[in-house]
Amino acid sequence: MSATVSPLAPKKYPKMPGIEGVRIATAEAGIKYKGRTDLLAMVFDAGTTVAGVFTRSKCPSAPVDFCRQNLPGGKARVLVVNSGNANAFTGKKGRETTAMTGDAAAKAAGCSAGEIFLASTGVIGEPLDAKKFSHLLGDLVKAAKPELWTEAARAIMTTDTYPKVATATVKLGDADVTLNGIAKGAGMIAPDMATMLSFVATDAPIAAPVLQDLLSRGVGKTFNAVTVDSDTSTSDTLLLFATGAAAKRGAPAITDAKDARLGPFRRALGKMLKQLARQVVRDGEGARKEIEVTVTGAKSARSAKKVALAIANSPLVKTAVAGEDANWGRVVMAVGKAGEPADRDRLSIWFGDNRLAFEGERDPAYSEEKTSAYMKRDSVVIRADLGIGRGKATVWTCDLTKEYVAINGDYRS
Amino acid sequence: MSATVSPLAPKKYPKMPGIEGVRIATAEAGIKYKGRTDLLAMVFDAGTTVAGVFTRSKCPSAPVDFCRQNLPGGKARVLVVNSGNANAFTGKKGRETTAMTGDAAAKAAGCSAGEIFLASTGVIGEPLDAKKFSHLLGDLVKAAKPELWTEAARAIMTTDTYPKVATATVKLGDADVTLNGIAKGAGMIAPDMATMLSFVATDAPIAAPVLQDLLSRGVGKTFNAVTVDSDTSTSDTLLLFATGAAAKRGAPAITDAKDARLGPFRRALGKMLKQLARQVVRDGEGARKEIEVTVTGAKSARSAKKVALAIANSPLVKTAVAGEDANWGRVVMAVGKAGEPADRDRLSIWFGDNRLAFEGERDPAYSEEKTSAYMKRDSVVIRADLGIGRGKATVWTCDLTKEYVAINGDYRS
Repeated sequence: MSATVSPLAPKKYPKMPGIEGVRIATAEAGIKYKGRTDLLAMVFDAGTTVAGVFTRSKCPSAPVDFCRQNLPGGKARVLVVNSGNANAFTGKKGRETTAMTGDAAAKAAGCSAGEIFLASTGVIGEPLDAKKFSHLLGDLVKAAKPELWTEAARAIMTTDTYPKVATATVKLGDADVTLNGIAKGAGMIAPDMATMLSFVATDAPIAAPVLQDLLSRGVGKTFNAVTVDSDTSTSDTLLLFATGAAAKRGAPAITDAKDARLGPFRRALGKMLKQLARQVVRDGEGARKEIEVTVTGAKSARSAKKVALAIANSPLVKTAVAGEDANWGRVVMAVGKAGEPADRDRLSIWFGDNRLAFEGERDPAYSEEKTSAYMKRDSVVIRADLGIGRGKATVWTCDLTKEYVAINGDYRS
Repeated sequence: MSATVSPLAPKKYPKMPGIEGVRIATAEAGIKYKGRTDLLAMVFDAGTTVAGVFTRSKCPSAPVDFCRQNLPGGKARVLVVNSGNANAFTGKKGRETTAMTGDAAAKAAGCSAGEIFLASTGVIGEPLDAKKFSHLLGDLVKAAKPELWTEAARAIMTTDTYPKVATATVKLGDADVTLNGIAKGAGMIAPDMATMLSFVATDAPIAAPVLQDLLSRGVGKTFNAVTVDSDTSTSDTLLLFATGAAAKRGAPAITDAKDARLGPFRRALGKMLKQLARQVVRDGEGARKEIEVTVTGAKSARSAKKVALAIANSPLVKTAVAGEDANWGRVVMAVGKAGEPADRDRLSIWFGDNRLAFEGERDPAYSEEKTSAYMKRDSVVIRADLGIGRGKATVWTCDLTKEYVAINGDYRS
């Protein structure tokens, strides 16, 4: 949590409604930070279903292991999240901590430990002592209230400079259902399945396998299409909870992923995941500008995404944007290094509407002045057309500033 | 070329001897820089053989295309290198420039254009006008002298803060032969075949196919094992020239790569390539510390190298080293994200002799104080043992500082 809020922070935050069947409480457990909340309990009514996607890291955190173990049950009653310590690479002690936290939460909610989900974010490799916060869970579960979504988003922040929230209401059958989501970013962001921490809940009555299908398909163009620094976290966790409370108001129970009535919900979920993912990028450590990278004309969508990520992860592209320098030669470099099919002499590049390069050389109509003016914007759109196929992809990142180096040269201390 | 010399620059530079059959001249052509040399001609006696390795970028520069075309001939008479403009992504104009430069150099030396080799380094996408310097080649070839190796290294610098040179003398048969090498770095360094620009010459009489074998095998553990910023250049070029002049002093002509008499030469070449590559890393843009990353216990050597590069390219590892923070959790992250076989619970990590992590958790004997003291060194050694096989690899990189961001946020202007 930084004293200076990102210049790309939302101008205003939505008022977050409650989700029927979800109650929230936060606390100052003092795990690492002082004078701020660092513990979140989200309590779900009996019958809540759950889906999740997790980091593909070969060194996942203990909470990721814990969630993976409980996910096949498809049922959730409590989510416990702490900030300040990732409980990652903590060996046997890490597993003891998740077991103890799971048991304490289950006792507090009167459910089985298989219905508890956990996430931790912060420093890697430091043992996390469950005794620092597990005794608080009983009171938190009792005190939990529906409307505290923004407080929840605050409690899970690390180097984030603002809380990330989103809400939407859509029709499911003839009934209104609501989705609320929160997320935290800010460094070690290059999701490869899910990303960082994000939690979405809805009152829609959707069976767990359907939820999982929605979520797994939803991440490809949203959370898995953002990167701050190409570094994939050990703790990436995205969970989606559905309390089913809207069934009382006539929302149909959805048990088949192909159910046509899911359309509006699916679109709203996709939009929310993209909103949250872009909020993460716009709060990337040290970020001053958002960069949208679109690659068209690639051999396939998969190939387009690899080239787009090569551009978005290039330190030289990111520092050029930080310096407001229309250095499109570095985009050429990044296309060239991506290792995907490309033909130098068919490559065209745009910054916004300014075409800088066309068919393998500088565009004759290129205006340095116009493009330099464009680079001063908060949000820069880079497009590269490879000219060899129909594959297309868009990813989002942020610029690389001295502030990123400052934040990360002094993170642990 | 920067006013501030890297703190990792060599304390003293070797006195570079001449190589019989090689003459050198430099000039201030004013291609982009003022008040410094930016043009190099290296002239070789008739009979000089040549080998080369080049960038694997899909968007190679025009000089790379030109060299690739001439390489099968195996003969070299002139090398022309300019700094300040990479002649990359310059389309038809770029090809015209290489053709015109090749013709001017051939005319000056009285040879065919197929015996000319070219390299350009600097900004990408700006047309390079051959007329700015091709008229100088006649005088340069005439004026060329044997001893100007350090001047040659200076003329090819861009954001380098010091010239990179190395020399060695070894036995070939019973005769002494000499190798001289120069290189330039400093950003866009993540070689994937050869790297940046480097030129090595020897008076040994070695046939072109043997030279090529030596060079291609030599780059894997040297130039292809260094990275500054994970960004592979469009212009990476490494050329090795052999004049054969030592034959007069009794050096045997080598025409078979398996010739046992090549042993000392092969080792000296490997050592020189490593010296030059490490000099490039130690002059990485903004570098304050060199980082050596060794991965052991991987499934294979190839897998070890991929994990080592994931660590070496991680912005979070590099900023931690810049901040002198023994944040080994980020090494865990980088191992996890590499996508190679790894087992969290068998992973051990050392910074220097300090074992920080052992079999999946923090080493009980870990001393924060001792490790923090170690991080203050100029040169930091990171080792990760994956504990699952016998694959091993070492790569070199530098830290990521605010200065890197400053240099690259304002490179073109």
